[in-house]
Amino acid sequence: MNRYENLANVLGERIEQGLYPAGHRLPSVRVLSTEHGVSVSTVQQAYRMLEDRQLVEARPKSGYFVSLLKRRAELPAVCRNPQRPVDISQWDLVLAQLNSRAHVDRLALGGGTPDVTLPTLKPLSRAMARVAQRTDLSALYYDSLDGCKDLRDQIARLLIDSGSHMDAENIVITTGCHEALSIAIRSVCQVGDIVAVDSPSFHGAMQTLKGFGMKALEIPTDPVTGISIEALEMALEQWPIKAIQLTPNCNNPLGYNMPDDRKKALLRLAQAYDIAIIEDDVYGDLAYQYPRPATITSFDDDGRVLLCSSFSKTLAPGLRIGWIAPGRYRDRAIHMKYISTGTSATQPQIAIAEFIKQGHYQTHLRRVRHQYQQNLCVMTGWVNRYFPQGTRVSRPQGGFLLWVELDEKIDTQKLNRLLEPDQIQISVGAIFSASGKYRNCLRLNYAQIDEKVHEPAIKRVGEMINQMMMMA
Amino acid sequence: MNRYENLANVLGERIEQGLYPAGHRLPSVRVLSTEHGVSVSTVQQAYRMLEDRQLVEARPKSGYFVSLLKRRAELPAVCRNPQRPVDISQWDLVLAQLNSRAHVDRLALGGGTPDVTLPTLKPLSRAMARVAQRTDLSALYYDSLDGCKDLRDQIARLLIDSGSHMDAENIVITTGCHEALSIAIRSVCQVGDIVAVDSPSFHGAMQTLKGFGMKALEIPTDPVTGISIEALEMALEQWPIKAIQLTPNCNNPLGYNMPDDRKKALLRLAQAYDIAIIEDDVYGDLAYQYPRPATITSFDDDGRVLLCSSFSKTLAPGLRIGWIAPGRYRDRAIHMKYISTGTSATQPQIAIAEFIKQGHYQTHLRRVRHQYQQNLCVMTGWVNRYFPQGTRVSRPQGGFLLWVELDEKIDTQKLNRLLEPDQIQISVGAIFSASGKYRNCLRLNYAQIDEKVHEPAIKRVGEMINQMMMMA
Ligand SMILES: Cc1ncc(COP(=O)(O)O)c(C=O)c1O
Ligand SMILES: Cc1ncc(COP(=O)(O)O)c(C=O)c1O
Repeated sequence: MNRYENLANVLGERIEQGLYPAGHRLPSVRVLSTEHGVSVSTVQQAYRMLEDRQLVEARPKSGYFVSLLKRRAELPAVCRNPQRPVDISQWDLVLAQLNSRAHVDRLALGGGTPDVTLPTLKPLSRAMARVAQRTDLSALYYDSLDGCKDLRDQIARLLIDSGSHMDAENIVITTGCHEALSIAIRSVCQVGDIVAVDSPSFHGAMQTLKGFGMKALEIPTDPVTGISIEALEMALEQWPIKAIQLTPNCNNPLGYNMPDDRKKALLRLAQAYDIAIIEDDVYGDLAYQYPRPATITSFDDDGRVLLCSSFSKTLAPGLRIGWIAPGRYRDRAIHMKYISTGTSATQPQIAIAEFIKQGHYQTHLRRVRHQYQQNLCVMTGWVNRYFPQGTRVSRPQGGFLLWVELDEKIDTQKLNRLLEPDQIQISVGAIFSASGKYRNCLRLNYAQIDEKVHEPAIKRVGEMINQMMMMA
Repeated sequence: MNRYENLANVLGERIEQGLYPAGHRLPSVRVLSTEHGVSVSTVQQAYRMLEDRQLVEARPKSGYFVSLLKRRAELPAVCRNPQRPVDISQWDLVLAQLNSRAHVDRLALGGGTPDVTLPTLKPLSRAMARVAQRTDLSALYYDSLDGCKDLRDQIARLLIDSGSHMDAENIVITTGCHEALSIAIRSVCQVGDIVAVDSPSFHGAMQTLKGFGMKALEIPTDPVTGISIEALEMALEQWPIKAIQLTPNCNNPLGYNMPDDRKKALLRLAQAYDIAIIEDDVYGDLAYQYPRPATITSFDDDGRVLLCSSFSKTLAPGLRIGWIAPGRYRDRAIHMKYISTGTSATQPQIAIAEFIKQGHYQTHLRRVRHQYQQNLCVMTGWVNRYFPQGTRVSRPQGGFLLWVELDEKIDTQKLNRLLEPDQIQISVGAIFSASGKYRNCLRLNYAQIDEKVHEPAIKRVGEMINQMMMMA
């Protein structure tokens, strides 16, 4: 990325985030040139880029203004879910989305894969290769059941940034966050139990509830502050809820970070009703703010939070290395770990431990967070430009996923079918609900953007939605 | 191994297997020299070795005779289990055994680890390193949910040796055989269901039943022909059994291969009662016979057998790559796979596929099978020599595990405690039963024997047992 693109992104972001409201006059070319230490022509190029994105209008003799044409998109609406535990459906849709990975010719705009092509990951590949050939053959032996001590030590260190001070003994390595969630759920719930979930919510966690025969109670969730504490309390009064499962930081799919006071309120509720919290923090280290947001776990003083995470989003998903910090449920979690996969793979654990120890993890995070934040701005710009007026868009505070709410008439499953000839696919909203809500929503991934590929694709999706609107 | 050791092993094995009964005259030095194309002095050295092992006695002027002193050990008795479904216990004992892996100073004589130090595995380490650094970064991406197609193709090819002809589409890659078993059990059973198991049986499978809330019905098992079809039929008549879970080839811990007619009879029973069979074949490729024994799966004509296996015993357990061929239960198995770990790790799959494709798998198998077969002879010799008269010993037909049944008065948990100061540990028999039977049994691993280390250790175990006998 060169200087003017960089500047355009910074300005674009400020506009997207409402710092400069619609119609507002923007700083002059001269002021920006001084402020950012770049040449006047760089600022002019940046402004031209923003004009292209329809974020900015040039008014002769007066300077640049935030475009009136395209106001900032509204946030997705808070879903008024019927508060009733349901059996989880949508597996067929989830499977269809997973199977689409096999279509190499198809452009998947909504998957969950981070950018693994950055040079800051190179030391990890090298470490993997090195460990594979170590003469002590450590890659080949069974590891201990709770995982490689070196890695648990490094994770314990990383957790300090999220406010947690725990021993390596409290951490159990897993095969990705999936296994962590699966262990957590089976550590605290039985068949038939009711689990409260944020809504929309990660389909993997919900399918896990389904697979183990639990019911989900979807709690309305605000696109900026997260799960509604008020709605949760009402639900707790009414139903024998066994646990709350949620992703409070860099939420998938909404992108919010729950404010600390709401995290604490949630914890107090869980204490009052004596239930467990399953906290998914898989994107937490990808928050755009510094320092990264605290986990609910960090406020937990009686071990009722089971923290689940992995390196799938921060490093690479193919490694399948995650962890659980199961608090007071450790004994049961260890049994569940044993019966789900036995021990975890040895080589990637040692390699990741080395990678972190040598400081590469933080370097990579800085690089990738920066990229995601810039890409967010670009992707939001495209959606604003190409999707119909009235489209609602999330404002992620971390991660690389955007949630888009379309007109109620639009069914995104149908949209996907219509996009098949174009070899383009989005993630349909329905899989983020236990009962198939959010049919008019979709998820986009902005981890890795190639303007030549992605802009025409998003444009095409927008056109298709417009066509559907006209037909409806 | 040199010529006379080789010959000694061949002869020793024939003696152990009863080909030459106790007191029987052995072939003359001259005959053996001609038969095996080795020098007379080589045969003499081999006989001296067998004398040392107390398998053979030299009688002046008459030649060599099978020792009368040490008769061949009896087989372990068939356990007359009470045929009643039970809740599974023994987790504490299993955990203790798993945790002992962390004691690096301790010599674990009974673990489940194969020999991973052989040079025939080198190409695998190299493949792992190569794949880790591939420029297409395939090691870093999510794989497809059912696993890497190349690997499934190779597994389908390997399965031909076990009598199965199936498409790669019937195979789902898992995180070790553990995950395969876990998926299988959850694909066919619900909480509270009764599962019939061979007894003694692999503790991992039983703990999985426990973890998912099922009951085990232990079926008496013959140390040579496997699970009793007759007892199983009686149990099926009496109880609403949902599935049979067993390891018919190179059984852990007994080492038998079920004869084909018994495998077929078992399948017919399952058909008659319309229940599923969960077949664990994790040691199947390590059978000493050629060709390797057939699986029950290979006789299955209506998809009721779920075949579970992995490369943990044939290659290396640290890789955590296994598979399930779930037959008619594929849809449910895929859901269970998704919720237990999501996709499997990408890099080891590609590496193993390359390793097999290049012919290294068969080379390694030949090497390692040969070693295990020879080590069996050595280990059996030591047990015969150092353990008390009356000790019963299994006669494995594959794999690397020996099952030893001691006098009923001996509790092997106590034995382990007594062995602690010596930094030696055996696997206690109780973990191989759902309800803590086999307290007087133990399992030994003969995958990798260092005579200087293992002979004194086995001797020490024998001494301790003798001491316990005297105290009892
Ligand atoms: C919120 C959330 N949790 C967990 C996961 C799964 O992580 P892993 O790939 O480590 O199993 C994902 C991946 O999509 C996710 O979005
Ligand atoms: C009979 C049997 N099945 C399965 C396993 C577990 O295999 P994996 O390490 O591939 O999970 C073992 C390992 O001890 C075993 O003995």
